[in-house]
Amino acid sequence: MITRVQHRVSFYDTDAMGVVHHANYIRWFELGRVECLRQVGITLDALMQAGYVFPITDVRCKYLAAGKFDDVLVIEAKPAALTKVKMAFDYRILREKDQAVLVEGHTQNVFTKRETGHIVRLPELYYEKLARALA
Amino acid sequence: MITRVQHRVSFYDTDAMGVVHHANYIRWFELGRVECLRQVGITLDALMQAGYVFPITDVRCKYLAAGKFDDVLVIEAKPAALTKVKMAFDYRILREKDQAVLVEGHTQNVFTKRETGHIVRLPELYYEKLARALA
Amino acid sequence: MITRVQHRVSFYDTDAMGVVHHANYIRWFELGRVECLRQVGITLDALMQAGYVFPITDVRCKYLAAGKFDDVLVIEAKPAALTKVKMAFDYRILREKDQAVLVEGHTQNVFTKRETGHIVRLPELYYEKLARALA
Amino acid sequence: MITRVQHRVSFYDTDAMGVVHHANYIRWFELGRVECLRQVGITLDALMQAGYVFPITDVRCKYLAAGKFDDVLVIEAKPAALTKVKMAFDYRILREKDQAVLVEGHTQNVFTKRETGHIVRLPELYYEKLARALA
Repeated sequence: MITRVQHRVSFYDTDAMGVVHHANYIRWFELGRVECLRQVGITLDALMQAGYVFPITDVRCKYLAAGKFDDVLVIEAKPAALTKVKMAFDYRILREKDQAVLVEGHTQNVFTKRETGHIVRLPELYYEKLARALA
Repeated sequence: MITRVQHRVSFYDTDAMGVVHHANYIRWFELGRVECLRQVGITLDALMQAGYVFPITDVRCKYLAAGKFDDVLVIEAKPAALTKVKMAFDYRILREKDQAVLVEGHTQNVFTKRETGHIVRLPELYYEKLARALA
Repeated sequence: MITRVQHRVSFYDTDAMGVVHHANYIRWFELGRVECLRQVGITLDALMQAGYVFPITDVRCKYLAAGKFDDVLVIEAKPAALTKVKMAFDYRILREKDQAVLVEGHTQNVFTKRETGHIVRLPELYYEKLARALA
Repeated sequence: MITRVQHRVSFYDTDAMGVVHHANYIRWFELGRVECLRQVGITLDALMQAGYVFPITDVRCKYLAAGKFDDVLVIEAKPAALTKVKMAFDYRILREKDQAVLVEGHTQNVFTKRETGHIVRLPELYYEKLARALA
């Protein structure tokens, strides 16, 4: 399952080199990840209200080409691994008009109890939905 | 009482016009406001733990000159008005090397109960400290 | 002419008070302004390549209610004034699901020559398009 | 050579989970990298004026503990590798008060000609300075 979300590059996404600042792609991975979870019926808000948070433990990103102001980007997110305590995603961000791949990335999240910050096994209810995303 | 905080402009603070993106000055007002409160013995963290939040209700900003990458800026914050339910600050942001004024601004905050979001009269304890900042 | 653009609130748009950080609305005014210009046939990129930049000289914003993670917002931009050397816009940002107005704002831009930074009279070509937006 | 820069966490650096948003650490690596270059006599501004830009091609980050509002962080940057066409840095970001390591990271930059975007061999002048940082 690959989820796709669009984002148009704003002035505030760019820097004085005239291109998208590299840290913004890490932000945009989140757009893909959140949309992927939404499509299997999980919102981070509902997770938080149930007492779980889903912090990032690892990020990797390779930069292949530069995005510019007003480019329409497509953020692709794809579940890459899942256990009861963690989940990984792979990403690509493309420029829509020519489908050039601007960045490739990877993140890993762990499931933690919000109150304690401790890593926990995710309840079956959520795990099953995520397993479907991975299938 | 005028509080001064330094901030050096990073690449991620600039945009493709080669200057600081205008929304960042609004962020930096916060640096001055938080430091001003700290100097009279109030941290926003302690306020939040006591159940109060301090949301912005009004922002105004005039842009006089453009900041650039690597400029050292000085954010000046000055309490401008205080009642039991709200507080206002005036700001100036200067470029340190030539003391050029880049922006002038103003914000108003209200005191609210975190749980309800309702505006509340600030306890005497905090009010007295803020009154000292205004004096 | 009122232009409307959607933006879904991301985690990185929120702060530790659990709501959208107030400076982000100032960023989002830009989404409306840029879209409004696009609809009358002007892109900031083309303007910049013709040697013009369009810096903000004034921002005002009133905060009426707080946006939260995952809210779909609607940014409304409406040209408010135009002369040969400057242009003003009014904004509202609404929460889509209940049409609650979260913020109301106003910006003023001036037309400047990119090389000199001096304010200039905008060429007729652009002025006519902007005048149509205001009509 | 290890360079250290301080940064105090602002509200706008945090998100609705009550902690620093993970993408901000990637931004802060830049504070360390820029300061490291400054200490060997290179400013990115001067590099850009000489026609060079220094884009990131790789980022990796491991998240070990969460930063919070008002924490004073120390960003450590350390040159890790250098050739005529690229340079790598290692980073750690610590919480000053207890020296807890919040994140560990790595970036790689390439030297490119600003006009063409092509990778170029860095002039001896700059290379020597960077080699000193690595030594």
